[in-house]
Amino acid sequence: MSAWRLVDEGAAPEPEAAARPEGPRTNGRRLLVVAAAVLLTLVGAGGLAAAGTGMFAERPDGCVKPDRSLQLYAVELPKDGTQVRLGYGLTPQTASYPGPTMEMMEGECLAITLHNQVSAETLAALRTDPAHPLGVSLHVHGVKYTQQSDGTIHSGSYVPPGQSRTYTWYAATRNNKSGSQGTAGYWWYHDHVVGGTHGTQGLSAGLFGGLVVRRPGDPKPDRTYVTAFGDRQSINLRRGDAADTCAPVNPQPGPTCLVARKGERVEFIVIGIGNDMHTFHLHGHSWADTRTGVVGNGQPFADTVPIIDNKTLGPGDSFGLQVVAGDGVGPGHWMLHCHMQFHSDAGMATTLHVLDEKGNMPPGMGHQHGTASTARAANSASTDSSEHRHN
Amino acid sequence: MSAWRLVDEGAAPEPEAAARPEGPRTNGRRLLVVAAAVLLTLVGAGGLAAAGTGMFAERPDGCVKPDRSLQLYAVELPKDGTQVRLGYGLTPQTASYPGPTMEMMEGECLAITLHNQVSAETLAALRTDPAHPLGVSLHVHGVKYTQQSDGTIHSGSYVPPGQSRTYTWYAATRNNKSGSQGTAGYWWYHDHVVGGTHGTQGLSAGLFGGLVVRRPGDPKPDRTYVTAFGDRQSINLRRGDAADTCAPVNPQPGPTCLVARKGERVEFIVIGIGNDMHTFHLHGHSWADTRTGVVGNGQPFADTVPIIDNKTLGPGDSFGLQVVAGDGVGPGHWMLHCHMQFHSDAGMATTLHVLDEKGNMPPGMGHQHGTASTARAANSASTDSSEHRHN
Amino acid sequence: MSAWRLVDEGAAPEPEAAARPEGPRTNGRRLLVVAAAVLLTLVGAGGLAAAGTGMFAERPDGCVKPDRSLQLYAVELPKDGTQVRLGYGLTPQTASYPGPTMEMMEGECLAITLHNQVSAETLAALRTDPAHPLGVSLHVHGVKYTQQSDGTIHSGSYVPPGQSRTYTWYAATRNNKSGSQGTAGYWWYHDHVVGGTHGTQGLSAGLFGGLVVRRPGDPKPDRTYVTAFGDRQSINLRRGDAADTCAPVNPQPGPTCLVARKGERVEFIVIGIGNDMHTFHLHGHSWADTRTGVVGNGQPFADTVPIIDNKTLGPGDSFGLQVVAGDGVGPGHWMLHCHMQFHSDAGMATTLHVLDEKGNMPPGMGHQHGTASTARAANSASTDSSEHRHN
Repeated sequence: MSAWRLVDEGAAPEPEAAARPEGPRTNGRRLLVVAAAVLLTLVGAGGLAAAGTGMFAERPDGCVKPDRSLQLYAVELPKDGTQVRLGYGLTPQTASYPGPTMEMMEGECLAITLHNQVSAETLAALRTDPAHPLGVSLHVHGVKYTQQSDGTIHSGSYVPPGQSRTYTWYAATRNNKSGSQGTAGYWWYHDHVVGGTHGTQGLSAGLFGGLVVRRPGDPKPDRTYVTAFGDRQSINLRRGDAADTCAPVNPQPGPTCLVARKGERVEFIVIGIGNDMHTFHLHGHSWADTRTGVVGNGQPFADTVPIIDNKTLGPGDSFGLQVVAGDGVGPGHWMLHCHMQFHSDAGMATTLHVLDEKGNMPPGMGHQHGTASTARAANSASTDSSEHRHN
Repeated sequence: MSAWRLVDEGAAPEPEAAARPEGPRTNGRRLLVVAAAVLLTLVGAGGLAAAGTGMFAERPDGCVKPDRSLQLYAVELPKDGTQVRLGYGLTPQTASYPGPTMEMMEGECLAITLHNQVSAETLAALRTDPAHPLGVSLHVHGVKYTQQSDGTIHSGSYVPPGQSRTYTWYAATRNNKSGSQGTAGYWWYHDHVVGGTHGTQGLSAGLFGGLVVRRPGDPKPDRTYVTAFGDRQSINLRRGDAADTCAPVNPQPGPTCLVARKGERVEFIVIGIGNDMHTFHLHGHSWADTRTGVVGNGQPFADTVPIIDNKTLGPGDSFGLQVVAGDGVGPGHWMLHCHMQFHSDAGMATTLHVLDEKGNMPPGMGHQHGTASTARAANSASTDSSEHRHN
Repeated sequence: MSAWRLVDEGAAPEPEAAARPEGPRTNGRRLLVVAAAVLLTLVGAGGLAAAGTGMFAERPDGCVKPDRSLQLYAVELPKDGTQVRLGYGLTPQTASYPGPTMEMMEGECLAITLHNQVSAETLAALRTDPAHPLGVSLHVHGVKYTQQSDGTIHSGSYVPPGQSRTYTWYAATRNNKSGSQGTAGYWWYHDHVVGGTHGTQGLSAGLFGGLVVRRPGDPKPDRTYVTAFGDRQSINLRRGDAADTCAPVNPQPGPTCLVARKGERVEFIVIGIGNDMHTFHLHGHSWADTRTGVVGNGQPFADTVPIIDNKTLGPGDSFGLQVVAGDGVGPGHWMLHCHMQFHSDAGMATTLHVLDEKGNMPPGMGHQHGTASTARAANSASTDSSEHRHN
């Protein structure tokens, strides 16, 4: 029974004649609302068990059977102050924000089973509308999926607390004959249901991660970092000192420690989340404004492509780029920040630490730190280390 | 008599010596203001009748004679609450916001006669400066026009109430020899004078529409929808339920009903209006970030072009894209929303309803609606239908 | 002595064991802060004299010796109301905001000696943190430089009052073999230290300018204008009448007088500064969204490139474009404004005055001005000239 059909398909009662709530704006009122109410009566509680496994295809065209499958866990992480933090992880123990960076090749079909380990209590606390369903979902950009894997409320493709659901992503290939454009690119995935219809609370709690789809022949990076620009002037939900936790000795790459040796190919997946506009700026390095951030080798169009070192992004946008760390410019603490001045001033900044080829930072670095510290010490009676930032 | 000429052209009295009003910012004061006052004396009231048909060319180069002409009416529409609504229409009876979507081929010259049927009273109410002229105009992006068709106050190219004026647009072709770039693209047109020098009140009342200029060989869509992202979290000046008025049975395409059968080529003209930044995101579909939203067939640069499903746009921006509805992903209610979370949460969302090839929505859809409604009904004592949104 | 080394490089005391200040956010606290403090002790005040000339390379790879050198002065300009104004100049007498437009060819290495003539008193007044060092710097986008020329506090590459420092910029060439992308493009330079770590106060006071790096074969403009879109709805820090100071007779090109004869190739370097998003819109002209704003001659990809007349930019962004003044559309007062309506309404607008080939503005222009003025005069009892704007 479909609420959507052409008139020649049957003689459904005209829903417009049904109970029509009077609102202040009657013109544009959504007729589907009424249709849904009618259906509710027809379907009843019994029919709801089948919700989400109905008549929509489970898998996108081209994916007969997933090539690979993985388990993904949505878990609650320790609060950041009073902020609830949630994360996706390949295991519950390794959940983090951003979640694990996914990598696919064009042509690959991936089945991801999401296990919702976030408590109903936490999810309930994140919603303002008590009627909003409790659950976590997986909505992905760029690759192909059916309504069954949309990760939205209206399609029923979300996961109640304690339950699991398998999402199928297909990294469709380019098809010059059909005009299909392929899905290689820098994308992201995120919750779309926590707290409200758009998953705003899930996103701001940490339920997001990067996805890169590669095409055969694409350059392969030595290191990949995800940098998500978000509200409250945050990079990966942290700001200021918290956005750079590199240990000075033997720094380990991680979501808040961007480090590379000179000559390594470093890939950034840049994501906009939240409500604000930002600009991604990296000192000392530039990239091509193309699909991969790299220009073709000697093609005439390479001359046409802008080379940039600052790129505007809004919520939902994602792009990627690859730079050769320190190429031509040497090692150093290369700032990476939002160029909106009040954002960077408020701590929306971190650093790409480029070591030399042997993994050392040249001595000058310490001196520079010393300079800044001295200036502070010399001029300020009370040096508050917690405010000391060197970027 | 020109206020603009090189000194060797004549011995005009130095306007700077004329009455020079003292303002708080004398440095940057605009000398042209004085020149205009001087001219006013010379020209007098008698000369003003000729204003707007003066010495600037009526038609852009390349347009000897318009290939086509049409009538456009600016009319007042029923208020939306207390908001004045104006619209352009090919007839007064069919005026709407957005206005009619214009389509041109490169090489074509179009004459549009604008009839201003908006009352002086309404136009006066929309201005804050009682000295601002009353009128409606037509300013267009992308195609070629002279100052006579600029649609601005200073050029006199606007239409007082009850009057008419013909605007000439030329969709100039690409010329590889001269370097002229052609005008094929996704553009828009709008008023530039209602309420103030930039037409802000005209725009926010509804005086805008989409324009597509095609180049021979461009892909042709089965359906074209205009989606204008504007202030107050609106799509086409509506938001929430009002942004999707599709009837559940035999839905008819329109400014607030985006519907297509699977396999149809759907074209979106996306326009930014107002004061805010937005991002256009469509679920389940992606497109190339190129002139047409489609990549060339097998050209090497096709590999360079980013494929995207989310694009930032600011006021004045316009772009277009074509997707094959449901391609690879099947039918369904595919959300189209601003990805700024507080925008989407406030109702800046609508849906591309993709029916199957026969024009049906698969049964699963109703179930999903049922699910959402049940959850609400089960948890909420007072179900307020007017708040029920399924996207 | 390096604070950054791999564990196998030596046995530095683990800084984490050192005095660790307790702050409200201990998780993400930056360990480098501690390292810097430790180093400070080791280096001592004596070592600081060498700061900024340490172990980082002075010049980027490819620049054995600068091809050219120039002197740049940072000076204090007359205040704009209560606003401090600073400017860069090739001489102290010609300092302005924006600063001098720099032009380089790919392959060129440029040494710029910056002389800081801004008083310590002024610099001190611009900072809120009394521990912040006093100085002015030069940070550049797009071209190559080492940490010695980064223009940042942490690298020590800034100039205290009364001192000088040489910055080296290398406009690296494209190298199809290595994949190096070249640096041709539209860039900008700015202070990065005045008032705070991101130079926010230096920027908003006027310490910025445009840079264009050309590639052999690039089209050469007849005129180049820099338009910086900034806070308070400003173009080049001016707004409203102050953004267009063209004299009506024999107008001279300058930062606030954009003028050209029909047929001249006009280049715009467009820069985003400050905190806000803007959109650059030019009436009557359009350009290609490519590296140069021009499309290749007959290349197949030329068909793929979007042609635009409105472009969003955020802080830190820069792009360039070339248009042939009045091409196809004739002379006139072509508005150039931000298309965010409340920005343009608040004065974020100026004009590209296109004269005819002989340097005259056709007579119609005066008439139009007359029209607007008359309307005002007719409707307004008290005509306040200081509010009269014709764009």
